[in-house]
Amino acid sequence: MIGVAVIGYGYWGPNLARCFAETEGCSLVSIADRSADALARAAKRHPYARLTSDWRDAITDPKVDAVVVATPVTAHFEIALAALQAGRQVLVEKPMTATSEQARILVDLADRRGLILMVDHTFVYSSAVQKMKELIDADALGQVYYYDSTRINLGQFQRDVNVIWDLAVHDLSIVSHILDSTPAAISATGAMHVPGTPENMAQVSVRLENGAVAYLNVNWLAPLKVRRAMVGGASKMIVWDDLEPTEKIKVYDRSVSLTDDPEQIHEMRVNYRIGDMWAPKLSTSEPLQTEAAHFVACIDQRLKPITDGSMGLGVVEMLEAATRSMRMHGQVVEFGARRRAS
Amino acid sequence: MIGVAVIGYGYWGPNLARCFAETEGCSLVSIADRSADALARAAKRHPYARLTSDWRDAITDPKVDAVVVATPVTAHFEIALAALQAGRQVLVEKPMTATSEQARILVDLADRRGLILMVDHTFVYSSAVQKMKELIDADALGQVYYYDSTRINLGQFQRDVNVIWDLAVHDLSIVSHILDSTPAAISATGAMHVPGTPENMAQVSVRLENGAVAYLNVNWLAPLKVRRAMVGGASKMIVWDDLEPTEKIKVYDRSVSLTDDPEQIHEMRVNYRIGDMWAPKLSTSEPLQTEAAHFVACIDQRLKPITDGSMGLGVVEMLEAATRSMRMHGQVVEFGARRRAS
Amino acid sequence: MIGVAVIGYGYWGPNLARCFAETEGCSLVSIADRSADALARAAKRHPYARLTSDWRDAITDPKVDAVVVATPVTAHFEIALAALQAGRQVLVEKPMTATSEQARILVDLADRRGLILMVDHTFVYSSAVQKMKELIDADALGQVYYYDSTRINLGQFQRDVNVIWDLAVHDLSIVSHILDSTPAAISATGAMHVPGTPENMAQVSVRLENGAVAYLNVNWLAPLKVRRAMVGGASKMIVWDDLEPTEKIKVYDRSVSLTDDPEQIHEMRVNYRIGDMWAPKLSTSEPLQTEAAHFVACIDQRLKPITDGSMGLGVVEMLEAATRSMRMHGQVVEFGARRRAS
Amino acid sequence: MIGVAVIGYGYWGPNLARCFAETEGCSLVSIADRSADALARAAKRHPYARLTSDWRDAITDPKVDAVVVATPVTAHFEIALAALQAGRQVLVEKPMTATSEQARILVDLADRRGLILMVDHTFVYSSAVQKMKELIDADALGQVYYYDSTRINLGQFQRDVNVIWDLAVHDLSIVSHILDSTPAAISATGAMHVPGTPENMAQVSVRLENGAVAYLNVNWLAPLKVRRAMVGGASKMIVWDDLEPTEKIKVYDRSVSLTDDPEQIHEMRVNYRIGDMWAPKLSTSEPLQTEAAHFVACIDQRLKPITDGSMGLGVVEMLEAATRSMRMHGQVVEFGARRRAS
Repeated sequence: MIGVAVIGYGYWGPNLARCFAETEGCSLVSIADRSADALARAAKRHPYARLTSDWRDAITDPKVDAVVVATPVTAHFEIALAALQAGRQVLVEKPMTATSEQARILVDLADRRGLILMVDHTFVYSSAVQKMKELIDADALGQVYYYDSTRINLGQFQRDVNVIWDLAVHDLSIVSHILDSTPAAISATGAMHVPGTPENMAQVSVRLENGAVAYLNVNWLAPLKVRRAMVGGASKMIVWDDLEPTEKIKVYDRSVSLTDDPEQIHEMRVNYRIGDMWAPKLSTSEPLQTEAAHFVACIDQRLKPITDGSMGLGVVEMLEAATRSMRMHGQVVEFGARRRAS
Repeated sequence: MIGVAVIGYGYWGPNLARCFAETEGCSLVSIADRSADALARAAKRHPYARLTSDWRDAITDPKVDAVVVATPVTAHFEIALAALQAGRQVLVEKPMTATSEQARILVDLADRRGLILMVDHTFVYSSAVQKMKELIDADALGQVYYYDSTRINLGQFQRDVNVIWDLAVHDLSIVSHILDSTPAAISATGAMHVPGTPENMAQVSVRLENGAVAYLNVNWLAPLKVRRAMVGGASKMIVWDDLEPTEKIKVYDRSVSLTDDPEQIHEMRVNYRIGDMWAPKLSTSEPLQTEAAHFVACIDQRLKPITDGSMGLGVVEMLEAATRSMRMHGQVVEFGARRRAS
Repeated sequence: MIGVAVIGYGYWGPNLARCFAETEGCSLVSIADRSADALARAAKRHPYARLTSDWRDAITDPKVDAVVVATPVTAHFEIALAALQAGRQVLVEKPMTATSEQARILVDLADRRGLILMVDHTFVYSSAVQKMKELIDADALGQVYYYDSTRINLGQFQRDVNVIWDLAVHDLSIVSHILDSTPAAISATGAMHVPGTPENMAQVSVRLENGAVAYLNVNWLAPLKVRRAMVGGASKMIVWDDLEPTEKIKVYDRSVSLTDDPEQIHEMRVNYRIGDMWAPKLSTSEPLQTEAAHFVACIDQRLKPITDGSMGLGVVEMLEAATRSMRMHGQVVEFGARRRAS
Repeated sequence: MIGVAVIGYGYWGPNLARCFAETEGCSLVSIADRSADALARAAKRHPYARLTSDWRDAITDPKVDAVVVATPVTAHFEIALAALQAGRQVLVEKPMTATSEQARILVDLADRRGLILMVDHTFVYSSAVQKMKELIDADALGQVYYYDSTRINLGQFQRDVNVIWDLAVHDLSIVSHILDSTPAAISATGAMHVPGTPENMAQVSVRLENGAVAYLNVNWLAPLKVRRAMVGGASKMIVWDDLEPTEKIKVYDRSVSLTDDPEQIHEMRVNYRIGDMWAPKLSTSEPLQTEAAHFVACIDQRLKPITDGSMGLGVVEMLEAATRSMRMHGQVVEFGARRRAS
C-alpha cells in the first residue's frame, strides 16, 4: 500500500487528493497547505488524512512513499527536490518547474536515485488523446502533417504565468506524446491587453524534427470557450472537440493527391478525396483517475511513466523557447543545435 | 450609362459579369478571355456583349469606360496599366497585383490621370463586415484589442500563389477596413505538404500601429470548412461565423477588468463580466452586387472607393511581408521605418 | 429520344424543366403556363422549347411523349388525366392529387393503358434517403422502431393546403419508401394562428402495420429552420440532418437491452450500449436530376418507378387521414379495415 | 430555524439533502431511507443528521418542521399524507402523486390545516424558465401561440412510470407556469419497444383554454440527447436549448402578418419579418437551491408556493389524461366539462 501526500490544496489539489483517495493500491496519508481554510476544507473531505501547514512534515512522514506537488509553479522545484532527496516518488503538477534548469536537476536526481518522477499532464491520459495516439501509432492517418489547436476562453487570467504557460502547455504535452518527434524550432507572438497582467493571447508555431508542425492559438480574452484541435495526415484527418459531450474525436477520410490531368490549367493538379467520417467510441473514465492509477502502477512495477520527468522537461523547454520568441516578436528559436550537441 | 468590359471569364469573372449586367447605371459591353470555351459560356449568358479573345480590343473599345480585371493575378498589372493608360476606370480582382512595386505604379498612374482604381476585396462589401465596421466606428466594442480569424477548408490548392495570398488576403483587407490603423510588423510561419505546390497552411500575426493585433490561421488541407473570426474589444466582443445561414454576427457583452480585491491570491485580480449576446439582423444583399454599385457610384460621383488602389497596395505589402517572414521561419518583418521615412 | 413537356412554370417547374433539359435520352419539347411572365422567363432559359399558355397544346403535341405536371395541386388531376388519356407518360409533382379518389382514378387508368405514372417525391431520390433505405434493407439497424421528424421553418404559408400537405408530405413519402410497411392508423393535431390561412403547425403520428411508428412535427411559424429526422432501430439509430453541408447521415451504434441483474431496483433492468458513430459518404448528385433520369429509364425500359402512382396514392390517403384526424382534434383514423376489405 | 427531514436518499434525495443543508434559515435534521447502503452514504455527507430506516420516525421527530419526500412516486401519497396529518410542511418530488385522486386529497388536507404543500418541479426554478416567464408576462412575445418541446435521450428507462410521467412532466409544469392558462384537451400517442417496459416514446398535444397549444416529443430511445423547446408568439419567438452552456435562451424577433398585396397569387398573402436575435444573460444559480430557499421563504412568510399542490395536481391530471389518450391511440381527452362543473 503506497502512502501518498498531496502538497497544495488550492484549485487542483482537491482533485488529486480525491483521485488518490479512490485509487487501488495507495492511500491518502497526508495533505499539506499553508492556508488554514484549505486545511479545513481538506478535513471535511478527507477526515482520516493527516493535515499540516508545513509541507516538510508531509515529506518526512515515514508513512509517505509518494509526494504529489500541486502548489503554484514557483514552488514546484523546491518541494520536488526535497521529496526526491528524501527518497520519495514524485508527481508534479504541470508545468513541471518554472525553468528548464530546475527540471533538468530534478530529472537527473530522480535518475540517480532510481525514483519515479512524473508530471501531471492530465490531457495525455484522456480517452480522446489516447485514441489519437492509438490511431497515429497504427498509421491510420498516414504521415502526420500538422496539429492545429484553438484553446480559448474568457479567463482565467494568471498572476505569475502567461497564457502560453497556462494553456499552450496542454497542447505541447499532447504534441510530445502523439507525434513522436522532438521540436526543431519555435516561433510565437503574443499580446497583453490588461495592464499589469502577463500576455493573454498568443500564437505559437512549432516545427518538429520529423517535418510536422504544430500551430497553437491560446487566449484568455475570447468571447467563446473553444477546445478544438485538428490533426492532419496524408490519408486521414482528426478533429478533436473536447467540449462535445460524446463524439469528441471525429476521423475524416479526406485527403489530397497530385494528378497528371493536363486539363487543369488555373488550379493546381490536385485531387480531393472525401470519404466517410467516423467517431470512435471513447472510454468515459476520468483522465485524472487513469493518471493516478498509472502513477501507482509505475511505482509498483518500476515502469517509466508516460509523462515522465524527461517529457516534462521537454515541455518546459518549449514553453521557455515560445516565451523567448514572443518577447522577440516572433523571432524563431532553434532547438536542434543544442540538442544534438548535448 | 457606363460601358463595362470584363477581362477574364474563368472562375470569378462570370460573377462580376453577372453583377455588372444587373447593376443600374452601367451596361456590360464586352467580355474578353483567351479561352474559346470561356467565350462560348459567356455568349450563352450575355448574348448582347461583345466577345474577344484579346483583352486589348476590350480596352480600346470606345464604348468601354470601365475595365474589370478578373484574370490570374500575374496578368493584373499589365492589363490594369494598359487600361489606365487608355483612360479607363479600373476594378481589379484581389490581390491587386503580384508585387507592391506594380501596385504602387498603378496607384500613381490612376492618381495622375484622375481615374478610379478600385480593388475587388469583396468581403469588405458584405453585410457582416459592414456591421462590424459600423459597431467599431460607433465605439460599441471599446478599444479593439484583436482580430483573430480561422479560414480553412479542403482545397482549393492554387498553382501560382500560396495560401496566404489566396485566403489571408481576405482577412488583411477586412483588418485594413475595420481597424483603421496601419501595420507595424508581420510575422508568419507556414508549411508545404504536397510536393510541387506552394505553402498550404500558415499562421500570420500582424501588429498594428494602434496596438491591436491580427492573428490569421489559413489552411487548404483541413478536414472542415471554417470561416470564423473574433474581434475582441475592451467592453464587447464579436464572433463572425460566415457559414451560419442567418446569425453571422454575434456581439457578446463580455469583458475583464482589474479589481483591487486583496483576497485573490492565486489568480490575477481580474473581474469577468458576462452579459447578453446579440445577433443584429444583417442585410441579405449580395456583397458583389453592392460592390459593383459602389464602383459605378464612384465613377459617376468622383468618389474615393472604399477599397481603392491605395488600400489594395497596403494589402499586397502585407502579403509580401508575410511571405517574406514565412520564408524566414517567422522572423518579424517591420513596416514602420520605411513607412515613416517615405 | 423522349419528348418532354413541362406544364406549370411557377416555383418548381423551372427546376423540372432544367433537369429534363440536361437529362440524357430525352429532350425538353415544350413548356406550358397561363402566365405570360412565366413564359417569358421560360423563353430566356429554354430558347428551343415550344411555349404555350394552354396545357392542352402541350399534351396533344405529337413530339411530346411524356408530360410533367408542375401546377398547383388542384389542377393535377385534370391535366394528368388528359395526358394519360392522350397516351402520354406522366410525372406529377407532389402531392399527386387533391383527393385520393382522383389518385385512384389516375392509377387505374395508367394501369389499363400501360403507361408510366410517377410522382415527384423528390426526397426519395436524395442520397441521404437512399443511404437510409440501403442501411435498413441491409438490416444494419435491426428491427426499425420509429421514424421521428422535425420539419419546421418560418414560412412559406400556403394558400390552398395546410402544413401537413405542404411539409409532412415529404416525410410520408420517405416513410413509405424506407419502412416497407403500410399505415395502420393516423392521429394528428394542428393549429391555425394566422387568420384566413390553413393550419400552420401540426403533430402527426402514424402507426404502421409492422409495428413501427412515424412521428412528424411540421410548422410554418418556427423561429428556426430544422430538417432533422431520426430512425431508431433495435441495434442502431440514424440521425438525418438535411441542413448539414456534408455529414447529413449519422449512424449511431446505440441500443438498449433487457438485463437480469436483480440489483437494479429503482430503474428498469435495461442495459445501454453506446458504440461508435459513423457518417457514410453521400453522393453529391442532385436528387431531382436522379429522379429525371429514373423517369426516363422507366419509360425506356418499362420499369415500375420507385415513386409510382400507387405510392403517390398511399401518400395522399395518409394526408387525407391526417387532416381528418386533425379536424377531430386527434381522433385516430384507422386504415386497416378498409384496406383489408379492398 | 426550520428543521427539515429528507425521506428517500436514492437518486434525487441526495441533491435535496445537500441543498437544504446549505440553505439559510433551515437545518437538515434527519434523513430516512429503507436501504442501509443509502443511509451509509448519507452519514458520510451529513454526519450531523439523524438517520432512520423508518420514515415515520422522521415525521414524528419534534425537531422536524418540514418533510421533503423523495421516494419513488408510488410512496408519495402515504408519506405526504402522514406528514400533513402530523402538521408538517411538505415538499414532494415530481410527479406529486400516482393519481389525481391522491393529489386532490393532499391539497384539501394542506388547505384545511393551513400547511405549505409544494411540489418539486425543479425546472420552474431554473433561470431559463424564469426568463421565459418574465418575457411572456411583460408581453414581449405578443400573444403566445405555442410551446413545442423535444426532450429525448437514450435512457433512463423507468420501471413504474412511462416516458410521459418521466419526461413530459417537466414540460407540463413549465407550460402550467409560463402560459397562464388551464388545459382544455389532451391527445397523445406512444409506443413500447422494449418488452416488459412502459411506453418509451410519445407525442403529446395539449390545447389550452386560451387557444395556445403545447406539443411535446419525449423519448427514452433516441440516439441524441435533446432538450429544446420553442415558444412561438405573435411578435417574437423563443428557442430554449438547455444543453447550451451559456446562451440557453434565444429570443428571435421574427413574425408573420397578413398583407393585402394582390400580386401574390400562388402563396398566401403573408409577410415575414426577420429582425435581431438576442440571448439575455441568465443567472447561474442552481435551480434546486433557488427552490429550497423558496420553500423556506414560503414557510417563514406564509406565502403560496409557485409550484404549490394545486399546480402539482394540475400536472398529474394532465399526465393521467395523456396516458389515457395514449392507451386509446390518440383519442382526445377533454378537460373543460369536468373542470367547469367542479
